[in-house]
Amino acid sequence: MTTGRVTLPSEENFASETERIAQLWGADAIRNSDGTQLDDEVKALGKKIYSAYFPVRGHNEWIRPRLDEVPQIYLLTDRALAVDARLDIPLMDSFYSEQLRPNRSADPHRYWEVVDRTTGQVVDESLWDLDAKQDTVHVRAVVPMHEYTVTFLALIIWDPVEMYNHLTNNWGDREHEIPFDIRNSDTRRFVFDTFRKWLADNPDTDVVRFTTFFYQFTLVFDQSHREKIVDWFGYGATVSPGALDEFERVKGYRLRPEDFVDEGSYNSTFRIPGRAQRDWIEFISDFVRSNVAQMVEDTHKAGKEAMMFLGDQWIGTEPYREGFERLGLDAVVGSVGDGVTLRMIADITGVKYTEGRFLPYFFPDTFHEGNDPSLAALDNWRKARRAILRSPIDRMGYGGYLSLADKFPTFIDTVSSITDEFRQIHDMTGSQPAASDLTVGIVNSWGTLRTWMAFTVAHALPNQQTEPYYGLLEALSGMRVKVVFLSFEDVLEKGVSPDIDVLVNAGPANTSFSGGDIWQNPRLVTVVRSWVRLGGGFLGLGEPTATAWQGRFFQLADVLGVDEERYQTLSIDKYFPNEENRNFILEDLDPSSVIDFGQPLINIYPINEQVHILRASNGAVQLAANDYGEGRAVYIAGLPYSATNARLLERSLFYAAHREKAYRIWSSSNPECEVAVFPASGNYCIVNNTSVRQRTTVRLPDGSSCDFVLEPSAITWQSIQ
Amino acid sequence: MTTGRVTLPSEENFASETERIAQLWGADAIRNSDGTQLDDEVKALGKKIYSAYFPVRGHNEWIRPRLDEVPQIYLLTDRALAVDARLDIPLMDSFYSEQLRPNRSADPHRYWEVVDRTTGQVVDESLWDLDAKQDTVHVRAVVPMHEYTVTFLALIIWDPVEMYNHLTNNWGDREHEIPFDIRNSDTRRFVFDTFRKWLADNPDTDVVRFTTFFYQFTLVFDQSHREKIVDWFGYGATVSPGALDEFERVKGYRLRPEDFVDEGSYNSTFRIPGRAQRDWIEFISDFVRSNVAQMVEDTHKAGKEAMMFLGDQWIGTEPYREGFERLGLDAVVGSVGDGVTLRMIADITGVKYTEGRFLPYFFPDTFHEGNDPSLAALDNWRKARRAILRSPIDRMGYGGYLSLADKFPTFIDTVSSITDEFRQIHDMTGSQPAASDLTVGIVNSWGTLRTWMAFTVAHALPNQQTEPYYGLLEALSGMRVKVVFLSFEDVLEKGVSPDIDVLVNAGPANTSFSGGDIWQNPRLVTVVRSWVRLGGGFLGLGEPTATAWQGRFFQLADVLGVDEERYQTLSIDKYFPNEENRNFILEDLDPSSVIDFGQPLINIYPINEQVHILRASNGAVQLAANDYGEGRAVYIAGLPYSATNARLLERSLFYAAHREKAYRIWSSSNPECEVAVFPASGNYCIVNNTSVRQRTTVRLPDGSSCDFVLEPSAITWQSIQ
Repeated sequence: MTTGRVTLPSEENFASETERIAQLWGADAIRNSDGTQLDDEVKALGKKIYSAYFPVRGHNEWIRPRLDEVPQIYLLTDRALAVDARLDIPLMDSFYSEQLRPNRSADPHRYWEVVDRTTGQVVDESLWDLDAKQDTVHVRAVVPMHEYTVTFLALIIWDPVEMYNHLTNNWGDREHEIPFDIRNSDTRRFVFDTFRKWLADNPDTDVVRFTTFFYQFTLVFDQSHREKIVDWFGYGATVSPGALDEFERVKGYRLRPEDFVDEGSYNSTFRIPGRAQRDWIEFISDFVRSNVAQMVEDTHKAGKEAMMFLGDQWIGTEPYREGFERLGLDAVVGSVGDGVTLRMIADITGVKYTEGRFLPYFFPDTFHEGNDPSLAALDNWRKARRAILRSPIDRMGYGGYLSLADKFPTFIDTVSSITDEFRQIHDMTGSQPAASDLTVGIVNSWGTLRTWMAFTVAHALPNQQTEPYYGLLEALSGMRVKVVFLSFEDVLEKGVSPDIDVLVNAGPANTSFSGGDIWQNPRLVTVVRSWVRLGGGFLGLGEPTATAWQGRFFQLADVLGVDEERYQTLSIDKYFPNEENRNFILEDLDPSSVIDFGQPLINIYPINEQVHILRASNGAVQLAANDYGEGRAVYIAGLPYSATNARLLERSLFYAAHREKAYRIWSSSNPECEVAVFPASGNYCIVNNTSVRQRTTVRLPDGSSCDFVLEPSAITWQSIQ
Repeated sequence: MTTGRVTLPSEENFASETERIAQLWGADAIRNSDGTQLDDEVKALGKKIYSAYFPVRGHNEWIRPRLDEVPQIYLLTDRALAVDARLDIPLMDSFYSEQLRPNRSADPHRYWEVVDRTTGQVVDESLWDLDAKQDTVHVRAVVPMHEYTVTFLALIIWDPVEMYNHLTNNWGDREHEIPFDIRNSDTRRFVFDTFRKWLADNPDTDVVRFTTFFYQFTLVFDQSHREKIVDWFGYGATVSPGALDEFERVKGYRLRPEDFVDEGSYNSTFRIPGRAQRDWIEFISDFVRSNVAQMVEDTHKAGKEAMMFLGDQWIGTEPYREGFERLGLDAVVGSVGDGVTLRMIADITGVKYTEGRFLPYFFPDTFHEGNDPSLAALDNWRKARRAILRSPIDRMGYGGYLSLADKFPTFIDTVSSITDEFRQIHDMTGSQPAASDLTVGIVNSWGTLRTWMAFTVAHALPNQQTEPYYGLLEALSGMRVKVVFLSFEDVLEKGVSPDIDVLVNAGPANTSFSGGDIWQNPRLVTVVRSWVRLGGGFLGLGEPTATAWQGRFFQLADVLGVDEERYQTLSIDKYFPNEENRNFILEDLDPSSVIDFGQPLINIYPINEQVHILRASNGAVQLAANDYGEGRAVYIAGLPYSATNARLLERSLFYAAHREKAYRIWSSSNPECEVAVFPASGNYCIVNNTSVRQRTTVRLPDGSSCDFVLEPSAITWQSIQ
């Protein structure tokens, strides 16, 4: 049993059990969870003490008298159909009135917008009025049978995270925590004064765990108290009359309400970002960061470390935006849902250490009679472990009620093994990432700013639409490749770096991830074509490079060898070359096996008969390889995460890079097992990514191979000969 | 056994057998087929004699010395990638050199175009030259990594239909028939002189069966002698330097080569037609029609009837364009592939009679040992019969080699029954269409011009992409509804007629059939909304009213109750109301049955919780009903033809029209059987649309019902009480 790198949650009246479990898990730090306090005996254990700190909630006495200083958000009403010349548009019909309230005091005619959604035109402000008592906008001179919306500024009067916990746990009439916005100078002063006082009052705290800072990601509930809008990257709740006016002063132009509600998409990361969205992110981030830096400075002055939670009110901190290191944060901690979210934490630079909060959270939803939470713990650990081997987080921990977890001895034992294994990984690797054989560059509209954040709507919750793309990242998170994120602007300015082996463009058509009409930019396609022709690899997933232009839908159809029929060229015969079953990419697959490509893309076809069709179904290509000059391209229709699909991707990348020989060294015959190699430490390991026993054969650099039997979830370490 | 309404093909040395079969089938007319002649004894049988006439082929002695007077077509080369500053683009690499030859004599710099497909820009003519010996265009000052195409004018040196027969039947070194273009005045004079001489030389001919007139639909073969481009509506082969110059004089503007190749789509009917395409159709049709009218006049002067074959060189005749009756044609005959193609012939007005040429054609592909061609005959007949009951063609016939058919006695017997049944239908109905209970208006970009011609690429050959839409027409072709075709312009000018019960918009997004961005026209949506709100029915199929605009994809999502997620609003939660199993639309379906909606549309979602979800799969709505004011809408994801789907459509239409009560009267409990009612004749019939015995219960107007057992393919007649 080893010690260190582990943070344990504790709570009131739980000192001796805390000490026992801390020893079992080798914890060297103790934290309180949301709503719990640590016993003095626990504080005296000699562990580092983390204290959660919530800068902008928990002080209703301050904010209640000044409700205009809560965070605000632009909301778009439902569309209302005009039947005659007058139209009433109720504001709150589809919003939760305990969370949101129209901001009636900031002049609606200045800050709101009524839009004719049939024409897209803004209705002149002289033609509408707010009935503040009814929360209804009356519009005159409307055109019958046109649909209208109101975009209105709303006050967020219930902290969305606390609201979520409150509703989920049925907290009844417990007072709602009201958030506040530090854009207002009095409130900002209050926040800092309160924090400084708290620092002074908490001498035992070693680490201030900011949970989090100032602006919550977009989370809006509907009239039935259900989630209505969720965007983990959403800047929706950063707006206010003051911020809008300040933006105009700083940036030289004024944003419209429409710039925020964006036709109802609320600036989803899937939208192709325009100047307004990019400028707003920068504007808010500058503001958030200067205040974070101040809080960190205060923390350090008090002799404590500053740790940021990557979640909740993380908006504006932008850990992958240039200059994050200047905030002075000591650490970032985040929830580990899978390999992608592990990497999202672990790949952050500019802090001294990173920490993952693993699942399950010690809450009654998982810790109840009849359930074995150790299964969830192992599942979470196996997903994270692949990624840790490629990019180690420094610490791990858990959250929730330890007293609840303590009722499940198997769980306590399982986490003992996990934490030991975590420390062993650090010991065996010198905390270095495993060797990577390739560099993969993912190009989209966001580039580095959304590193490991592509294809996400809600944190670690891929859905039917996102999973064929999210699976790419999840597979890469634990793969023996280096991953870099590039924006189209990067490529336009600097070309494709020779360090990159395979360039990836992935996503549904007309989204920020595939890029939309940026592919009509001749420079972009020529740069990529020329790079591939000279030997680069290109991998397209879903609808890569898609925009309808000059008779092509995939603008790099020539590189990919396939295009998508959009019912414009049905008169042109499509001839499919025979499907090939013998290709390096397919070598681990049974020819009769069905590959899960996710939601079907129905009309992908070969543009010539030279392309290698590796899989097709119902007349649509699902997997293809194409030679292009000295380079190669691979097309994959979709890639929900699975071991099979991760292997398919790994082989596709090595194939596209012409690195089949390198692939064989350190390969695992069984896709459910992966090998990670640490040349500096002289070790390699094999992990079993499943809950059942697996056998695999690993090929060694000298051409020999070695057979392994791995117990469920096992990791085994070997010396490099 | 009855006689009349039937045309029999005959051939040389087949007189007595012809007489026997004519009697068995009750034929009152005899025709020659392509390449066959009638015996004198056959001509003396007292039947009407049809003679096929081919105005623009079969005279190589005329056209060979003047090869520039063949029909021409604009062809688009493959894209060629520029690697350095000079680029050679071979013209004929993907075309069949025995069919097509670049027109090297009409100044390429005037009539051709080199296009940079990466930028869409036309390359200045000073930068390229034709190497006529190599059939290659040399382009200078190209941009490396851009793709270029040449659009060139090509001579069609082999009649495409004769070419198809030649290749299919391995006619070896038989001389190729070269077509000619009457745009050239000498050739035009030759065509008319030849025809007049032929009229004089063929006194036995009663009916001149024009097969067909002047311009073949687009049919281009590739270098491997395979079909490369097919468009049954294509005006590709109507172009020539003379026509282009004349167009400019008549219409006041000049067309570009691009107007014909259209980014490689070759003006498919699925493309949203622009002004150039519409003007060209009108321009060519005016020319074709004036010459057809002349031929018809000559025919009449010779005391014969003029019958046009709807196929092959039918381009420009446009039977559904205004003024078709002024051509003076006596009849139209067409190939009957199914219900849709039957209606395409039968619904033509302005001729004295219509005739269907049924399948199978008496060719060795069907009439070979081991095959029973009577099965194909019955299948064809059952499909056509549904449609005949709704819109009777006047005559039927067959084509091919009668001597071949005569070797299959079962086939001869089967056609005896079919022809008797055909005459019986006329007898029992007074040649009137069955009563219709509803009027369905199909609105698209083409309107009446493409009556029963929507969703077709090749005649009667739906494919995977078209069949979810073509099935709508096939179902309607035999349904107890009246069908009218409307263009968006019709609706914009005149609104939706109160005669229409259900308005249908069907098609994939951004095609002429769904309409594309015309749905951004506020007048169009307001007209339809207001009409539905007042009680109209609306049916959307596939991606109706689709164009990305103001946050909606389906512009009438409010009417339909559903929209399509295009990855722009993934942050917005979608709540699906429970699927309903009890709805009028579903009453004939087993709740557990799988409906075939064709190619999956993956992201259709309910826009609110009031919409009735009748079927959904994998998180996508496939069938839904929605109330909208006094009206109703039904959404169907796709509708490949089957009895089940035809029934689903029938019920959907009656439901949308609020006519559930009317539906029950004359309904058939079994979807494989349909009822047709002829009030004027006092009869109704029930048809079995399958090759197996069926039972069904028919509800009568008095509320009683009647059970029927129908033998395979049977029709049974009853008196209306």
